[in-house]
Amino acid sequence: MAQAEFDNQAFRQALGSFTTGVTIITATAPDGTPVGLTANSFNSVSLDPPLVLWSLAKTSLSVEAFNKAEHWNVHVLSQHQQDLSNTFASRGEDKFSGIELEDGISDAPLIPACSARFQCRNTVTHDGGDHLIFIGEVVDFDQQALPPLVFQQGQYAMTARKPWEEVALSAQPAAPECSYNEDLLGYLLGRSHFQMLYRMRKVLDEQALEDSHFFALSVMNIQHQLTIEELNTHLDYTGHSIGEADVKFLVAQELIKELDNDVYQLTPTGRETSLHHIAQAKAIEEELIAELGSGDVMALKLMLKRLIHKTDPGLPDLWSEQGAK
Amino acid sequence: MAQAEFDNQAFRQALGSFTTGVTIITATAPDGTPVGLTANSFNSVSLDPPLVLWSLAKTSLSVEAFNKAEHWNVHVLSQHQQDLSNTFASRGEDKFSGIELEDGISDAPLIPACSARFQCRNTVTHDGGDHLIFIGEVVDFDQQALPPLVFQQGQYAMTARKPWEEVALSAQPAAPECSYNEDLLGYLLGRSHFQMLYRMRKVLDEQALEDSHFFALSVMNIQHQLTIEELNTHLDYTGHSIGEADVKFLVAQELIKELDNDVYQLTPTGRETSLHHIAQAKAIEEELIAELGSGDVMALKLMLKRLIHKTDPGLPDLWSEQGAK
Repeated sequence: MAQAEFDNQAFRQALGSFTTGVTIITATAPDGTPVGLTANSFNSVSLDPPLVLWSLAKTSLSVEAFNKAEHWNVHVLSQHQQDLSNTFASRGEDKFSGIELEDGISDAPLIPACSARFQCRNTVTHDGGDHLIFIGEVVDFDQQALPPLVFQQGQYAMTARKPWEEVALSAQPAAPECSYNEDLLGYLLGRSHFQMLYRMRKVLDEQALEDSHFFALSVMNIQHQLTIEELNTHLDYTGHSIGEADVKFLVAQELIKELDNDVYQLTPTGRETSLHHIAQAKAIEEELIAELGSGDVMALKLMLKRLIHKTDPGLPDLWSEQGAK
Repeated sequence: MAQAEFDNQAFRQALGSFTTGVTIITATAPDGTPVGLTANSFNSVSLDPPLVLWSLAKTSLSVEAFNKAEHWNVHVLSQHQQDLSNTFASRGEDKFSGIELEDGISDAPLIPACSARFQCRNTVTHDGGDHLIFIGEVVDFDQQALPPLVFQQGQYAMTARKPWEEVALSAQPAAPECSYNEDLLGYLLGRSHFQMLYRMRKVLDEQALEDSHFFALSVMNIQHQLTIEELNTHLDYTGHSIGEADVKFLVAQELIKELDNDVYQLTPTGRETSLHHIAQAKAIEEELIAELGSGDVMALKLMLKRLIHKTDPGLPDLWSEQGAK
């Protein structure tokens, strides 16, 4: 491809295939003004001496401040700092307002709650076309167990670690005549759901409750007063429903009671029972977070929410006031 | 922290918080030998002129080859190239064996099936402590729609894009008195599973089949001959089971038939029906891939498999020969 044909937009897009973290780099200008900007051009260079680098556009308003700074700090942002990333990516003033800066080894602003921070001595600058390459010696650093924010193809992203251990579910490789295998998303979702529910069963079995009762009590925990018909609009998509026999059973167990006009609500026992279920579900989730890591579980939830959005058959909003009386 | 106390391992770990893609950089040595290595120190520098950089340990056996090369190529690896990444991260020889190299603008080896590739003229080298910083001018590049391989905290990872659109499921912010909200993993898994299943219902309803029948036929599609008791060991964790009435119904519908000794198998109609179900499940998955992107769905599946591993109550291996007769 001749230089003349070089398509800048396509070039940027191709560069976007290379995934990066997101950093904020800060320094203090000679007049004492704090400066800072979002950069994903950070990278490590050397372990001994400990060097890192990043690039700054020559057109940046902060070029002089960084050139003259004796120190600058690199903040590797966590998933929770996406707003901060946007703020420091803009040209706005007062980027630092509302941030409780911490004390570092230099006058360079030090932002809290990052995945990692590197406090650096500004050592060398190299020319890099329309950018300047800053190389710094790391004088101090720290790290927190916060899932890092990620940038790919012009979008923020989260990572799910590919574990070193094998994740195959079956000891057998999929036989060619098999019409489906463990890679089918529907199978994986069903198995995940039922295995999580299986862990709930001990609690449900103790109370002789079926899945449909568990789901019904959970809905009534949010939507406090419902007719059975209204209750079933929330259950319908699960294939479960509450029939007359179920209502009798739940009333006999003193978990729900009838008010006027065919409207039902949880009894205090029913509410306590449902809260116990939800506490159990949260405990199961906490166990998983301990095993899979909070970053992975967060990414899993995000993707499930996107899947739910894309496959929603138009369910009533469980948390809206409309359904409640 | 004084320089003497600098903990190299902690420093590497903190650097690992900064997520990167994975690249293979290649060149041809003066004697014609192809050289290549895995690097995650790649980054873009400048758009005009188009410059990129990466760092190479001064102790690397390939230093001389890269120093003398007029060109080198950067390959941004895709999720499918993890093995290749490992190969080029080792010191082994014959790294290029089995790779069908493509023709580029120079003699530098060009590896196929990457997320993006940058063919560069070797322009400047800077000292970077124990590394050399190579800066190259991008002369040609290309990109493919393959999800990129990611590296974070010393592990390979996958990314799930954080969509710009809001992913909240409810129009209402979670009220403080709510005992659970849309962030509960168990709820998200259940809703995802049931919404996917809901899309199957049109097909199932046409045949008056219940969820348990669908699950049973799917199991019998893999494990061809089973007693009902054996079949139910595969269904038990779902809370579903096949009882006498179900067996009668499925036999009457000519979907399963009894062989000797209480052993059942699918009839040709039953097999065709199950294949139709699975084709439908695959079509639903394809629709989702089109909407969410193949990288995200791949990451979702990976995490579901890890969740399944961690929550497995000891289910029989559906795909193993043991259960089959």
